[in-house]
Amino acid sequence: MKNTNKIIVYQIICLLLMVAIGVLLFNNQKEKTVMKKESFSLEETALSVIMNRKSVRNFIKEKPVSKEDIDIIIKAGMAAPSGRDARPWEIVVVDNRKSLDAMAEKLPYAKMLMQSPVAIVVCGDTTKSSYWYVDCSAVTENILLAVEALGLGAVWTAAYPYEDRMNVVVENLNLPNNILPLAVIPIGHPQGEHKAKDKYDADKVHYNQW
Amino acid sequence: MKNTNKIIVYQIICLLLMVAIGVLLFNNQKEKTVMKKESFSLEETALSVIMNRKSVRNFIKEKPVSKEDIDIIIKAGMAAPSGRDARPWEIVVVDNRKSLDAMAEKLPYAKMLMQSPVAIVVCGDTTKSSYWYVDCSAVTENILLAVEALGLGAVWTAAYPYEDRMNVVVENLNLPNNILPLAVIPIGHPQGEHKAKDKYDADKVHYNQW
Repeated sequence: MKNTNKIIVYQIICLLLMVAIGVLLFNNQKEKTVMKKESFSLEETALSVIMNRKSVRNFIKEKPVSKEDIDIIIKAGMAAPSGRDARPWEIVVVDNRKSLDAMAEKLPYAKMLMQSPVAIVVCGDTTKSSYWYVDCSAVTENILLAVEALGLGAVWTAAYPYEDRMNVVVENLNLPNNILPLAVIPIGHPQGEHKAKDKYDADKVHYNQW
Repeated sequence: MKNTNKIIVYQIICLLLMVAIGVLLFNNQKEKTVMKKESFSLEETALSVIMNRKSVRNFIKEKPVSKEDIDIIIKAGMAAPSGRDARPWEIVVVDNRKSLDAMAEKLPYAKMLMQSPVAIVVCGDTTKSSYWYVDCSAVTENILLAVEALGLGAVWTAAYPYEDRMNVVVENLNLPNNILPLAVIPIGHPQGEHKAKDKYDADKVHYNQW
């Protein structure tokens, strides 16, 4: 090859290499931006889920919640602490449309069961703990947080301590005498925008003495 | 410049560009590995904190918990849901060694207050809700999860529903008549190894009917 041709070849190689560097730098930057958006530290993520949990009362009715997600949510619930490690909780998953509608009809604050594809009912075994409702409240909160983490929506509708509401649930789910329902939690894919409330109130924090 | 010299210059430029590409590729890979280790998706992180929360009863006594962490923990607590949005919670932060030791002495299951540099006492305002202990249980669970997310340790020791234990806390913190304590939560840097229990029990999951 003539020297002038060699020079042209080297110029082309240099140009290609510079283009390659450009592409690498651009992709690197793009990946970092994506990663920055989708990845979080262990701390900020759990805390952000706690802070962003909100009551979701509107659901996309036709869109089911996967069995995998329900299993994750239940496992999160059962990771709650309990007094004397008694674990007095029992979980009823309701995805039967007839049952959901029947409970919606009779529970004044659970009308959204008509829209939600599934509900989790957190119950307590009164023979295992006299304050099962305390432990089961921790279960319920874990469930709500797992729902938020999975990008789903839910709302805590109270059965306990209302005798009439508890009776509706007991009858519909055929609960035995020693099992009482604490909360009926409709779960689904949120419909529309939902925002968490900022409920922090410095006046409710006291130091050492009231 | 002579053509042969030009060729040498271009060869050197090509070599440098190739080295640059090598360095870029290597750094890119290294960064990805680091990111993979230290970053998590929103979902897995919150869920892993829920699953990894454990009762920590041994603390490094001399190692304080920062004011910033205590504030984050309290904010997480107050992000809990409450019936009719009544927010009946009140928080007492105890970091006075005398108070911590005095409560440790009289509370049978809170001896670890002697080691913990601080405790958060979750209380409820009985005039704001007749089932304040349900809402305050959700607050307590949020606090325990925030503690876990921050790499700290804590344990839920019950005041409510035990009259005698509640009285100890009321006296020590000078709580007014309408404020009752649900839980005394010693918080600190964990001493030794602590592992979460796997409490999932498939027999406690029911579908549609008991």
